[in-house]
Amino acid sequence: MSSNNTAGQVIRCKAAVAWEAGKPLVIEQVEVAPPQAMEVRLKILFTSLCHTDIYFWEAKGQTPLFPRIFGHEAGGIVESVGDGVTDVRPGDHVLPVFTGECKECRHCKSEESNMCELLRINTDRGVMLNDGKSRFSINGKPIYHFLGTSTFSEYTVVHVGCVAKINPKAPLDKVCILSCGISTGLGATLNVAKPKRGSFVAVFGLGAVGLAAAEGARISGASRIIGFGVSEFLCPKDFEKPVQEVIAEMTDGGVDRSIECTGSIAAMISAFECVHDGWGLAVLVGVPNKDDSFKTHPMNILNERTLKGTFFGNFKPRSDLPSVVEKYMNKELELEKFITHEVPFSEINKAFAYMLQGDSLRCIIRMEA
Amino acid sequence: MSSNNTAGQVIRCKAAVAWEAGKPLVIEQVEVAPPQAMEVRLKILFTSLCHTDIYFWEAKGQTPLFPRIFGHEAGGIVESVGDGVTDVRPGDHVLPVFTGECKECRHCKSEESNMCELLRINTDRGVMLNDGKSRFSINGKPIYHFLGTSTFSEYTVVHVGCVAKINPKAPLDKVCILSCGISTGLGATLNVAKPKRGSFVAVFGLGAVGLAAAEGARISGASRIIGFGVSEFLCPKDFEKPVQEVIAEMTDGGVDRSIECTGSIAAMISAFECVHDGWGLAVLVGVPNKDDSFKTHPMNILNERTLKGTFFGNFKPRSDLPSVVEKYMNKELELEKFITHEVPFSEINKAFAYMLQGDSLRCIIRMEA
Ligand SMILES: [Zn+2]
Ligand SMILES: [Zn+2]
Ligand SMILES: [Zn+2]
Ligand SMILES: [Zn+2]
Repeated sequence: MSSNNTAGQVIRCKAAVAWEAGKPLVIEQVEVAPPQAMEVRLKILFTSLCHTDIYFWEAKGQTPLFPRIFGHEAGGIVESVGDGVTDVRPGDHVLPVFTGECKECRHCKSEESNMCELLRINTDRGVMLNDGKSRFSINGKPIYHFLGTSTFSEYTVVHVGCVAKINPKAPLDKVCILSCGISTGLGATLNVAKPKRGSFVAVFGLGAVGLAAAEGARISGASRIIGFGVSEFLCPKDFEKPVQEVIAEMTDGGVDRSIECTGSIAAMISAFECVHDGWGLAVLVGVPNKDDSFKTHPMNILNERTLKGTFFGNFKPRSDLPSVVEKYMNKELELEKFITHEVPFSEINKAFAYMLQGDSLRCIIRMEA
Repeated sequence: MSSNNTAGQVIRCKAAVAWEAGKPLVIEQVEVAPPQAMEVRLKILFTSLCHTDIYFWEAKGQTPLFPRIFGHEAGGIVESVGDGVTDVRPGDHVLPVFTGECKECRHCKSEESNMCELLRINTDRGVMLNDGKSRFSINGKPIYHFLGTSTFSEYTVVHVGCVAKINPKAPLDKVCILSCGISTGLGATLNVAKPKRGSFVAVFGLGAVGLAAAEGARISGASRIIGFGVSEFLCPKDFEKPVQEVIAEMTDGGVDRSIECTGSIAAMISAFECVHDGWGLAVLVGVPNKDDSFKTHPMNILNERTLKGTFFGNFKPRSDLPSVVEKYMNKELELEKFITHEVPFSEINKAFAYMLQGDSLRCIIRMEA
């Protein structure tokens, strides 16, 4: 169906609905309402699965919000736009993003922050900001949104501040993974750790985010990249001494930069303590448990180490993602190595199985039959 | 006596000797041996007292090292130099510094560090590096050095890497306080916190170091400087809620920069948690207790806050102190406000009393009669 025919109309299409926590998604016929003020409706072509989808689908230790349409890494085309939208128009190729950029708040105006006050990630909200309601329904009963993106649907509605307009020549089945995890890890290195050419970088966590952080280190010209995973490469459990001491011995006093992508509090502390005094910088990416406490002896800080946290790799979604896509187009950035699986939309539950088994980095879900 | 007459000779002069922990210093006649390779002998004109002198003079919880000549903030003139010294010569005006810059190690070659591997502060060593012996003696019995400076003496011997050559027009009775505390606080702001013009800065600790950090904020054009002391201005004990929450309310979410100059672990944690998410940076200056643990919820870090430690305000002593002296000469930097007392050398124990009573910021000790 063409954009011209559907603008302003309810669209009926397929979506993968999570009816209950932890139960397989069900492909349903849903109604997708037209976009309201400052919203855009997207036709999703490719989406991929991220741990955050799994985490909220399992809904352990959270207030469950069901039925819900998950999904937040995707590539699509603008189908129609709501009132006040001037930055994108029907036909534009875009990446929806789970966090936004209003371009007007203190964070958006700061060069240093990407934590937009209006559109910052909100995992509890299942509705759109404009009217506090969902754009999805089945027989008139609302289905909740997820992260303002809900990309496990042939069509979805997203705030325009959560949409990055990208080069229409970019293959959406590849660059869709830049919506979340890959940009998070890559940006942690390129925007925050900023290792110099020839430096030593340690990466904790070798899932997609950690490997993207390592890809950032490769792009930066790091001469040595030391990876720590739960089961891959150097495993902290293989050592009798704290991993920060092992690293200090391997590197004559510590690495220049470290990037923590697991969310394990022990790894966070190791990541900080393994950087060299005088100039070492540790960047925390992984999301911790609620009750965790970061603890270190203050002399570790006073000896001129730096600790920084980052969110979405410090990328501003609308301003910065287009240039990340260009890095891929220029062959500076490799994305293919992150894509281990691909399934048609009808088999979306396989993507969940691959990730739960630890088999996949990213599984691309192809929306078209 | 002129330099020419004394070079290569033992000099007999007055020094304030600490014979026992916590007991008043005694002005004694001491012998000061000539400088050895890479050492310089200085005639001290002015010295001042810093908390670090008091801490090691009290020798609580440390291995006591007595008899010892304390003192590490001073201004003097080079009397003679040992073999291999080319950077300074007799007659040069200098500030001795408790930490050094060899100009050859990885730290000295790094733009980011000032923690010289060779000459980094060592509070336990009471002798010179070259031969492991003291240059001070009384009737042939050695008197220990302190921090490689021992400026409570009319003459002292210092490694050339611990000597900053400064503008000979600079008044040594003022710029001598740049040897330690004032530069530490000033550099923490100017070199590490780097607040932007118009920003909000919180300073914890309103002794000389904290006030120097605030002076750095003034020089940087901060629009609001919030001071926290033990007894001055805002006192954390006056509030029913954590001081970081009070600051967040006062500043719409937190300050842009904070600088912790007390060494209290609670203040360190408050200083970190009171900076704004997205861009806030906290700088730790104060030296903690051995058993302290810095604890915070990792989300405070992940929300794009930065934590940095600094040592001697990240100044490289030889490379950077001359330009700090120039800031004073250009009237960019005020020093007079830090100098609250002055005593002749014979009354040096009064300087200890003023500081112990909390009456003084800096007390200048005038060496000449
Ligand atoms: Zn914003
Ligand atoms: Zn994600
Ligand atoms: Zn050095
Ligand atoms: Zn000092």
